Amino acid sequence: MSFSIYDITIPVFRRGFTVLSAVLDKGLAHASAEGVDPATYVEARLAPDMLPLSGQVQRASDTAKACAARLTGLAAPSFPDEETSFEELQARIGRTVDYLASVDPAAFEGGEERQVTLRSRAGETPFVGRDYALQHALPNFFFHVTTAYGILRMKGVPVGKRDYLGF
Amino acid sequence: MSFSIYDITIPVFRRGFTVLSAVLDKGLAHASAEGVDPATYVEARLAPDMLPLSGQVQRASDTAKACAARLTGLAAPSFPDEETSFEELQARIGRTVDYLASVDPAAFEGGEERQVTLRSRAGETPFVGRDYALQHALPNFFFHVTTAYGILRMKGVPVGKRDYLGF
Repeated sequence: MSFSIYDITIPVFRRGFTVLSAVLDKGLAHASAEGVDPATYVEARLAPDMLPLSGQVQRASDTAKACAARLTGLAAPSFPDEETSFEELQARIGRTVDYLASVDPAAFEGGEERQVTLRSRAGETPFVGRDYALQHALPNFFFHVTTAYGILRMKGVPVGKRDYLGF
Repeated sequence: MSFSIYDITIPVFRRGFTVLSAVLDKGLAHASAEGVDPATYVEARLAPDMLPLSGQVQRASDTAKACAARLTGLAAPSFPDEETSFEELQARIGRTVDYLASVDPAAFEGGEERQVTLRSRAGETPFVGRDYALQHALPNFFFHVTTAYGILRMKGVPVGKRDYLGF
């Protein structure tokens, strides 16, 4: 038995969004319980030049849907980065998960050999699909989920490692 | 073409440790340049009840070597959590990578069907190898690498997303 490129990406993202959604729920509940404006959590950052919580969720969303698109050659929906509340971030997660669920696993066939070129300020980075999945998409996705978790932990939200792992 | 359980774990960890080692190097260089005691970075945390930088590196090490051991049935070396300096954390990473390199990829054959039981304060969690790899080992490994990065970012170390991704 072995793993397809679908196995190691889309179900992992979907599970990650379940975790992220539950952690955000605890963040909102904590803000309410403490009488804190939830927007202060949504705007919080680990460092002044890092993205706030909202940006971490938006980049997790983009990473996952772009991965599905790049490995299949299909277009992914574009979601504007306009979320400013927990409710809107949850809706963004919901739209992302709906999109991931809509992509036929069969469309990923051969995705490990597909040419993927990432463009950033530093230029272009060419990948073959398998390396893109393991060296970019998965690490990047977990980066944003973990950083979202870390921001809420820094704000005192009572979440623990089991919330992050989802067990 | 598909992926073996070895493909989706050990090379990913080894690459993650290359990234983590380079990020730690930048942390030490920044402390030196700023005239800050590097130990203050090694002991820094995102939240009072989270592990410090040293603990994040130790848990990344444990996650990776335990994964190799659990998926193969071989014993992993035990490393005491005694690191208090960047140099010692780099040595811990080196010992971990040496161990990962020493395990024969052939020993992972059938690892996706192996029974794995994790024990924590909350009790026992049973897994089959494939779920353990995708739902626990990989997310947990990236959690600790990302949190180590986040701690250094919080301390003002000039590292960016490309350092984390390793491109």
